[in-house]
Amino acid sequence: MDVNQHMARALDELRTAGNYRIFAELERQCTAFPKASIHTAGGIGEVTVWCSNDYLGMGQNPVVTDRMIEIIRKCGAGAGGTRNISGSNHHHVLLERELADLHGKEAALIFTSGYVSNWAALGTLLAKIPGIIVYSDALNHASMIEGIRASGCPRRIFRHNDYRHLRTLMAADDPAAPKLVAFESVYSMDGDISPIREICDVADAFGAMTYLDEVHAVGMYGPRGDGVAAREGLMDRLTVIEGTLGKAYGVMGGYIAASATLVDFVRSFASGFIFTTAIPPALAAAATASIRHLKESQVEREQHRAAVAKVRAALDRRGIPHMANPSHIVPVMVGNAAKCKWISDVLLNDFGIYVQPINYPTVAVGTERLRITPTPLHSDADIDHLAAALCSLWSQCALARRVA
Amino acid sequence: MDVNQHMARALDELRTAGNYRIFAELERQCTAFPKASIHTAGGIGEVTVWCSNDYLGMGQNPVVTDRMIEIIRKCGAGAGGTRNISGSNHHHVLLERELADLHGKEAALIFTSGYVSNWAALGTLLAKIPGIIVYSDALNHASMIEGIRASGCPRRIFRHNDYRHLRTLMAADDPAAPKLVAFESVYSMDGDISPIREICDVADAFGAMTYLDEVHAVGMYGPRGDGVAAREGLMDRLTVIEGTLGKAYGVMGGYIAASATLVDFVRSFASGFIFTTAIPPALAAAATASIRHLKESQVEREQHRAAVAKVRAALDRRGIPHMANPSHIVPVMVGNAAKCKWISDVLLNDFGIYVQPINYPTVAVGTERLRITPTPLHSDADIDHLAAALCSLWSQCALARRVA
Repeated sequence: MDVNQHMARALDELRTAGNYRIFAELERQCTAFPKASIHTAGGIGEVTVWCSNDYLGMGQNPVVTDRMIEIIRKCGAGAGGTRNISGSNHHHVLLERELADLHGKEAALIFTSGYVSNWAALGTLLAKIPGIIVYSDALNHASMIEGIRASGCPRRIFRHNDYRHLRTLMAADDPAAPKLVAFESVYSMDGDISPIREICDVADAFGAMTYLDEVHAVGMYGPRGDGVAAREGLMDRLTVIEGTLGKAYGVMGGYIAASATLVDFVRSFASGFIFTTAIPPALAAAATASIRHLKESQVEREQHRAAVAKVRAALDRRGIPHMANPSHIVPVMVGNAAKCKWISDVLLNDFGIYVQPINYPTVAVGTERLRITPTPLHSDADIDHLAAALCSLWSQCALARRVA
Repeated sequence: MDVNQHMARALDELRTAGNYRIFAELERQCTAFPKASIHTAGGIGEVTVWCSNDYLGMGQNPVVTDRMIEIIRKCGAGAGGTRNISGSNHHHVLLERELADLHGKEAALIFTSGYVSNWAALGTLLAKIPGIIVYSDALNHASMIEGIRASGCPRRIFRHNDYRHLRTLMAADDPAAPKLVAFESVYSMDGDISPIREICDVADAFGAMTYLDEVHAVGMYGPRGDGVAAREGLMDRLTVIEGTLGKAYGVMGGYIAASATLVDFVRSFASGFIFTTAIPPALAAAATASIRHLKESQVEREQHRAAVAKVRAALDRRGIPHMANPSHIVPVMVGNAAKCKWISDVLLNDFGIYVQPINYPTVAVGTERLRITPTPLHSDADIDHLAAALCSLWSQCALARRVA
């Protein structure tokens, strides 16, 4: 077997299916978000970014960038080692304290990314607790799935957000077996929100631990940006809350918050935590500044909600179909991979609007979409321009309108 | 089963065995490396760090820190998304070009860490090439082991650095099966260097791909900091070279360099690459600056080699046993977990010297050690102070001296 031919063929198959990814080469313009330069073969242009996960624009907030610069000047660029071997910095410790406080937990632990936090924490808990069974929502993120897979523990997949199905699955298992329910609060691609209370009720009835991924919620929901569980008064019902510093907080890194014992257990046994260089102290300090700011300030969250409502209204006025959901994610449904890619290309080239097409395998075939993420920094003119551009393309593509 | 009791017991067992990790809380002092503040219950002190993987002190080099600050001001803090969804920045692209050039390969791909680069690249190649068999050095890093494990492919472990054993294992397998040999150039804990040429010869004889982890070598070996394979004129013999931006380059992140097809294959299929937020543009730009500097400048490498030689000579003069190896890593052998921890504690508390004890499971029981990493920034006085302190503790601990 020729390995190179095999790889080339696999890539060709992606191209044929319309699933080959071409990365847009951006250069974000600090102080001008959501504007960015875009580098193409033809030169450098300007676009408005409509698909960033820097949901609140904290990545350009001087509270964050000034603190990052201050700590680079003070501590240098990198951490210089793993957390155990010279890499633990005062600013990591301060961040972990801040995160524990944010979620009302005894302790927190930071990882190099949200992906690694899910993979390492779930992988470790499920591998190291004998006999444990995991119950995983059908739409959980790839990082949770990989962690579950790595653990090798028995797994049950419950239908998305279906706590009744969860109950049926749990009732069929050994009552004495330790159990963990893994799910998310806001799901990235549909923007729907899980029934946290009902899932916790079922978990409690069977003595199960609960593990909630709040990566699309922290910073944005809850009175202090503490997430959907906090907004609903349910934080104490969760055994583990997992979050990211790379979306609404505008920096990079992931974390878990939980009891001191559980955090110490993951800290002590997770390969993906132990054997990796710690995040730069300046990133930790910038994230801490971002969290502290969003604990107090409601302005970003209010402006964000307003921007989301304006986008939805503008799309509705033009009959552009978008998925109804209770979150800040606005999925504009196209339902065809080739058309989705074409619309995205024309938006970029003719309208200066950058929205990445979301195709299989990120979403199911037939549900291809543009995943639009408004921010407090998009102006009314930006919103009008987006809606008008989509309106024009909807006609050109002969796509169905939503009937009012 | 009480899960909390189980976790608490597992932690107690670590404590009893002397393997419970307590992280030193440092605050690196930019411009004063290797000095750092240390935060303890008793207050803030000052230490000299002797166990950093920021081997050349690039983490405080203005070439790196100034560039990082410049790009924060220009592009903000975080990347704002995955590489596919708004997170690809011009500075990522420049870094990948720089890395491809560094290793004489067609392309390169960056990951959030060296750990993730090994886990994701090996995990993907081994899972997605049907029938492939992996041959893994017995002392490979945890990240490579996890990637191999995740792939589920058949694996053969060859004795550390033993290319004859590798040949025996390969000869026993189906000649038609695709094969990959995974190994490192400089091994972290013993500081020994693998026989790259001989391993490549065996691999070639069986048509196997070669995957070389150079994380402890890039920046430090080779005419342009391009690693041990480069120094020995062997870069073109390696299918994949993997490296880190978090050690000698002083920043954070990992990468692979290989053929355009292989890099595109990993880019297109690796979950741990696709579904994670990209590293901040400022980190990419700082790493690029660091690589470019170390491509030209020999000063850091020369001073580093001189510092390593001075440390070894100072230890020899006092009969402190350290493992002979051809690298920059100076393992001072203690051979007892409790004594290793005690020496480390006294060095810290009485001498202001920070060297983390390295115990099981990072190294085998009976080979506990202090892993000393000299840098160009350690002064002659620092070196004398270290050797004198160890000399005094060697007497107190009644540890064997090396006979000259």
